[in-house]
Amino acid sequence: MLTGRKFVFLGGDARQLEVIRQVTEMDASATLVGYDNLGESFLDTQLMPMSENVLADADAVVLPVAGMDNDGKVDTRFADEPLHLEPEHFAAMRPGTFVFSGIAGERLQSYCEEHQLRLVKLMELDEVAILNSIPTAEGAIALAMQHTDITIHGANVSVLGFGRCGKTLARILSAMGANVKVSARDPANEARIYEMGFTPISSGELDGLLGQDDIIFNTIPHPVLTASVLATVNKSCVVIDIASKPGGTDFRYAERRGIKAVLAPSLPGLVAPKTAGRIIGNTICRLLALE
Amino acid sequence: MLTGRKFVFLGGDARQLEVIRQVTEMDASATLVGYDNLGESFLDTQLMPMSENVLADADAVVLPVAGMDNDGKVDTRFADEPLHLEPEHFAAMRPGTFVFSGIAGERLQSYCEEHQLRLVKLMELDEVAILNSIPTAEGAIALAMQHTDITIHGANVSVLGFGRCGKTLARILSAMGANVKVSARDPANEARIYEMGFTPISSGELDGLLGQDDIIFNTIPHPVLTASVLATVNKSCVVIDIASKPGGTDFRYAERRGIKAVLAPSLPGLVAPKTAGRIIGNTICRLLALE
Amino acid sequence: MLTGRKFVFLGGDARQLEVIRQVTEMDASATLVGYDNLGESFLDTQLMPMSENVLADADAVVLPVAGMDNDGKVDTRFADEPLHLEPEHFAAMRPGTFVFSGIAGERLQSYCEEHQLRLVKLMELDEVAILNSIPTAEGAIALAMQHTDITIHGANVSVLGFGRCGKTLARILSAMGANVKVSARDPANEARIYEMGFTPISSGELDGLLGQDDIIFNTIPHPVLTASVLATVNKSCVVIDIASKPGGTDFRYAERRGIKAVLAPSLPGLVAPKTAGRIIGNTICRLLALE
Amino acid sequence: MLTGRKFVFLGGDARQLEVIRQVTEMDASATLVGYDNLGESFLDTQLMPMSENVLADADAVVLPVAGMDNDGKVDTRFADEPLHLEPEHFAAMRPGTFVFSGIAGERLQSYCEEHQLRLVKLMELDEVAILNSIPTAEGAIALAMQHTDITIHGANVSVLGFGRCGKTLARILSAMGANVKVSARDPANEARIYEMGFTPISSGELDGLLGQDDIIFNTIPHPVLTASVLATVNKSCVVIDIASKPGGTDFRYAERRGIKAVLAPSLPGLVAPKTAGRIIGNTICRLLALE
Ligand SMILES: NC(=O)c1ccc[n+]([C@@H]2O[C@H](COP(=O)([O-])OP(=O)(O)OC[C@H]3O[C@@H](n4cnc5c(N)ncnc54)[C@H](OP(=O)(O)O)[C@@H]3O)[C@@H](O)[C@H]2O)c1
Ligand SMILES: NC(=O)c1ccc[n+]([C@@H]2O[C@H](COP(=O)([O-])OP(=O)(O)OC[C@H]3O[C@@H](n4cnc5c(N)ncnc54)[C@H](OP(=O)(O)O)[C@@H]3O)[C@@H](O)[C@H]2O)c1
Ligand SMILES: NC(=O)c1ccc[n+]([C@@H]2O[C@H](COP(=O)([O-])OP(=O)(O)OC[C@H]3O[C@@H](n4cnc5c(N)ncnc54)[C@H](OP(=O)(O)O)[C@@H]3O)[C@@H](O)[C@H]2O)c1
Ligand SMILES: NC(=O)c1ccc[n+]([C@@H]2O[C@H](COP(=O)([O-])OP(=O)(O)OC[C@H]3O[C@@H](n4cnc5c(N)ncnc54)[C@H](OP(=O)(O)O)[C@@H]3O)[C@@H](O)[C@H]2O)c1
Repeated sequence: MLTGRKFVFLGGDARQLEVIRQVTEMDASATLVGYDNLGESFLDTQLMPMSENVLADADAVVLPVAGMDNDGKVDTRFADEPLHLEPEHFAAMRPGTFVFSGIAGERLQSYCEEHQLRLVKLMELDEVAILNSIPTAEGAIALAMQHTDITIHGANVSVLGFGRCGKTLARILSAMGANVKVSARDPANEARIYEMGFTPISSGELDGLLGQDDIIFNTIPHPVLTASVLATVNKSCVVIDIASKPGGTDFRYAERRGIKAVLAPSLPGLVAPKTAGRIIGNTICRLLALE
Repeated sequence: MLTGRKFVFLGGDARQLEVIRQVTEMDASATLVGYDNLGESFLDTQLMPMSENVLADADAVVLPVAGMDNDGKVDTRFADEPLHLEPEHFAAMRPGTFVFSGIAGERLQSYCEEHQLRLVKLMELDEVAILNSIPTAEGAIALAMQHTDITIHGANVSVLGFGRCGKTLARILSAMGANVKVSARDPANEARIYEMGFTPISSGELDGLLGQDDIIFNTIPHPVLTASVLATVNKSCVVIDIASKPGGTDFRYAERRGIKAVLAPSLPGLVAPKTAGRIIGNTICRLLALE
Repeated sequence: MLTGRKFVFLGGDARQLEVIRQVTEMDASATLVGYDNLGESFLDTQLMPMSENVLADADAVVLPVAGMDNDGKVDTRFADEPLHLEPEHFAAMRPGTFVFSGIAGERLQSYCEEHQLRLVKLMELDEVAILNSIPTAEGAIALAMQHTDITIHGANVSVLGFGRCGKTLARILSAMGANVKVSARDPANEARIYEMGFTPISSGELDGLLGQDDIIFNTIPHPVLTASVLATVNKSCVVIDIASKPGGTDFRYAERRGIKAVLAPSLPGLVAPKTAGRIIGNTICRLLALE
Repeated sequence: MLTGRKFVFLGGDARQLEVIRQVTEMDASATLVGYDNLGESFLDTQLMPMSENVLADADAVVLPVAGMDNDGKVDTRFADEPLHLEPEHFAAMRPGTFVFSGIAGERLQSYCEEHQLRLVKLMELDEVAILNSIPTAEGAIALAMQHTDITIHGANVSVLGFGRCGKTLARILSAMGANVKVSARDPANEARIYEMGFTPISSGELDGLLGQDDIIFNTIPHPVLTASVLATVNKSCVVIDIASKPGGTDFRYAERRGIKAVLAPSLPGLVAPKTAGRIIGNTICRLLALE
């Protein structure tokens, strides 16, 4: 339980509502800043304007997944204006206060260091990345369904990369009945790919290996679907690229060749904000309970 | 091979293009009626206006999945106007000519009987219904993803009915990580449900059994999701009803209770016209090759 | 509950112990005949010698899975001698008494008819056959493991027949990572085989289709693995034939060609007597509760 | 291809035959030492007695999986007597010669270092360990089937450890229809366990978590199934411990409590020597081809 803990939520989107629900159910209290238009109401929460006082009192400050930009701006879906965090807001927090953010830019990092705040970049935690791979994979598959005129069942599919997202994507696609190839760059990953019932291919030499594919899912944040690889791909093939911007696809060349290629960022929040919020909430609760 | 066989296609949608491709690849020839705006071109096919001559020559006439209505109207996506079939068109066909249609109304049936035409109602063939259950299931799942804010993985899901669609839906949902209950009304089906790793529930007494569900998929073409059952369902639950019109859900009551309920007809043609066309094409080819 | 119901168990093996446990947990009482060496003790049960009195009192008489042979002999693992049922024993039972047996020979059937006893041939019930397919499949797979020097994972496997056992076998083998072909003789079954992710082959023309197989499982109680089919099979291939005696394999020819072929009857009782007993017990309880 | 490469095989078991087959098919030549009773014959191989000359000529020397003990003894199934390797044998090999062994004792390691031989401990390679996890898991499951009277399907099963073997075991057991819990000690592994559809439990606090289990598979080479954990386990539960000797189970206490517990070493060679040999052969070929 988190009895007596004080949370401050600064902005956010549908995911935060789930986090607020979770921490208050664990008996914490929550102050919501930037939630003026919020329809719902929660136990043991109050809406407040941004102030140093509110922050001085916090055990944990929760920022949105996108965090704070380098100008101090924090987005919120629940108010008409974004929030702005100034140096004095960080100065007001007690040393040791948790600052939870999905990702963190330079400015946020340096403020937290300066004031000895415990910054947790949630999206970099392995457990969060693995759990987030589930809504990500479902979202990528939903996109693929939308952009093709065939079923996933029976489709020839490649998944590039066998990291946190690649493993989940490959497993679900195969379970749905696709013929799944997965690219990897070391023999241990190839062994696991084989054990899980997929066909291993080498990330290094994709040229010519993807020629029969109906759908390619890229998870590798490096230029792997180069023009020379895309030149060997079927024109009716659809590329769903979920790697972080700018993705791993030569989108210019894909368009020129007439291959549909979609860059698909931020799927968990889009596809399943409640699940995505629960993942964040669980991890925040776990970390605070460890204290 | 279908060398020398003559097909006449009367109207249709994207699915027919796949059928045309298949039969011409099997070396048949095809005459397309109602395809004036067709962009693509196919080997060994010619566009023709509707006429008795064209039909007199046919070994097989292929209507769209929806067939012909009782006024003789046949829809087509590839021309500005629908086609119209008159009694003399049927009279012109040779006895024994195959007439393929997805479903068939009274009028079409009686004309075919009268002129001894071999009418095949494709959607009533078990093999077609089973294969069509795949795009149907994927489409239903895509809809569920769109209408919920959670993932299929980890969701509590019920599938009502364990027929051709129910089996496929349950299998895919479970493979994706949902907790799947399936309703049936005889012990043999319950045994198979258990063997496949789902939880059997009784179709007869749904009251109270669906209270924890996040998503309910109905495949039973009878009023099973009655007001009294829906009254015990969670308000955040989403109902995807794929049973033939009017579905098995009391949509009025669902709306009143604030439960999102979607009637989702004709999924295969929407979601995966190419796959749906292949299914039809394969069966047509198989039946003609048996001759 | 089965409160007040009186069961008489006549002989049996480990499976019956599970049935006795179940019916007594449902509050029935049980009289055990032919259980003199029984180690365990159960609530509300008594050991008795065979007599007309015992039977006159019964609501349900439970025979072993193998039932009674045409000389009236009933086997028992829990006594030194088998039991013998005489005409007067059947005459003593009240009309309408349930007689549960796995299978039933001519004699047992005619006695039951004559005295208006409700004979239930458990193994012929679809629900029992489907549930029994699970221990059967596991036993067949255990045998295959024992007789091969390769893993099931990655093996080329054919399952002949897609009935109650064939479906279960194919599903488990595929889940374990085998490449599974399944034979069927109608297009609807082929469609389901494809939907479930296996490769359909035609039961009619097996010649030459099994040439790459490492293991063949036969479930068809007809001579399908004939000499001419076996002549095209790899010599290192192993055949596990679970079809009822004499199986569907030409064992003489298999031996001559040096192919290991095993006829494997009665797997559930061998492999998983407790599970097999539970299946029987559940069905008996369900049928009595319907009364 | 391995054209021109010279292999020397020193002793071994059925697995080596598969390796010999593979390297000779890749066009290498092989000299077999300790294979006097070998029934089969291979292309491009010769039987030879142990000698320095034979070894001087080798590009790669292949020892059995168990390697050489600290007295220089090397076991062989294909001769009446084991082989003995003396210091001069190592001295005779050219620097840079590959020495393949499953595992390696101190003595073997120091000789290889001294003479600059490239010792490869195959069983320590991640790719080999992952692929070997497949026959290991199948063997463990076969043992569980043999020692229980229930089916894997429907059984409550725990897998302790989520490393190379634990992942494979859990996946297969779940696919077969077991209810699978998996223990782990960090949140990232728990996340993956959840994603794959199993129930995560904490390795640290097993007390009381295993009370409903029918079968426990241990893969952790540490005392985890202690007396205090076993005291909370059902007496009919079966423990299959595959961790390296002495396993992770308090076998003395298990016996005292009447729990069947089996230590099961060396499963791949027992269960599927051909598959196990292929795994070794593939890796040897891959490593030599990299040269
Ligand atoms: N669109 C969304 O909604 C969404 C959601 C989650 C994540 N993402 C993004 O998706 C990407 C994958 O995320 P993740 O969590 O799966 O990351 P991850 O676990 O780090 O996996 C990355 C994969 O890429 C491979 N890889 C990296 N560099 C490579 C290179 N130069 N050549 C070949 N392979 C390379 C890695 O191989 P090794 O294992 O061999 O290193 C690994 O398989 C990231 O860019 C992440 O930001 C997007
Ligand atoms: N939306 C789409 O795109 C789409 C696509 C394909 C099919 N469909 C429609 O979906 C429905 C199901 O198709 P299907 O091919 O799966 O049909 P099906 O194989 O006939 O299955 C129907 C199921 O409903 C059960 N059922 C029927 N009447 C019932 C009743 N009164 N009470 C309880 N259960 C009952 C049947 O149970 P028993 O097995 O016990 O009889 C069976 O499990 C049909 O209406 C079909 O037209 C829609
Ligand atoms: N060894 C054991 O422990 C054990 C346990 C259970 C059952 N069994 C035996 O295993 C066999 C299968 O049992 P089951 O419950 O799966 O039976 P089932 O449901 O009746 O299935 C039999 C299968 O065989 C096919 N078949 C029958 N005759 C055929 C023929 N002439 N040519 C081609 N296919 C044919 C059927 O095809 P269609 O569907 O097209 O008719 C069906 O797929 C039976 O002999 C049964 O007694 C043995
Ligand atoms: N019987 C056979 O035929 C056979 C075949 C192959 C392997 N094996 C043996 O099986 C065992 C497992 O092999 P593997 O390849 O799976 O090894 P592995 O990949 O290293 O996995 C070992 C697992 O044990 C966990 N672990 C280690 N120490 C622990 C501790 N003190 N407390 C809790 N968890 C602990 C590890 O957790 P972390 O991931 O958190 O470190 C990991 O999950 C080894 O002993 C191996 O020699 C036997």
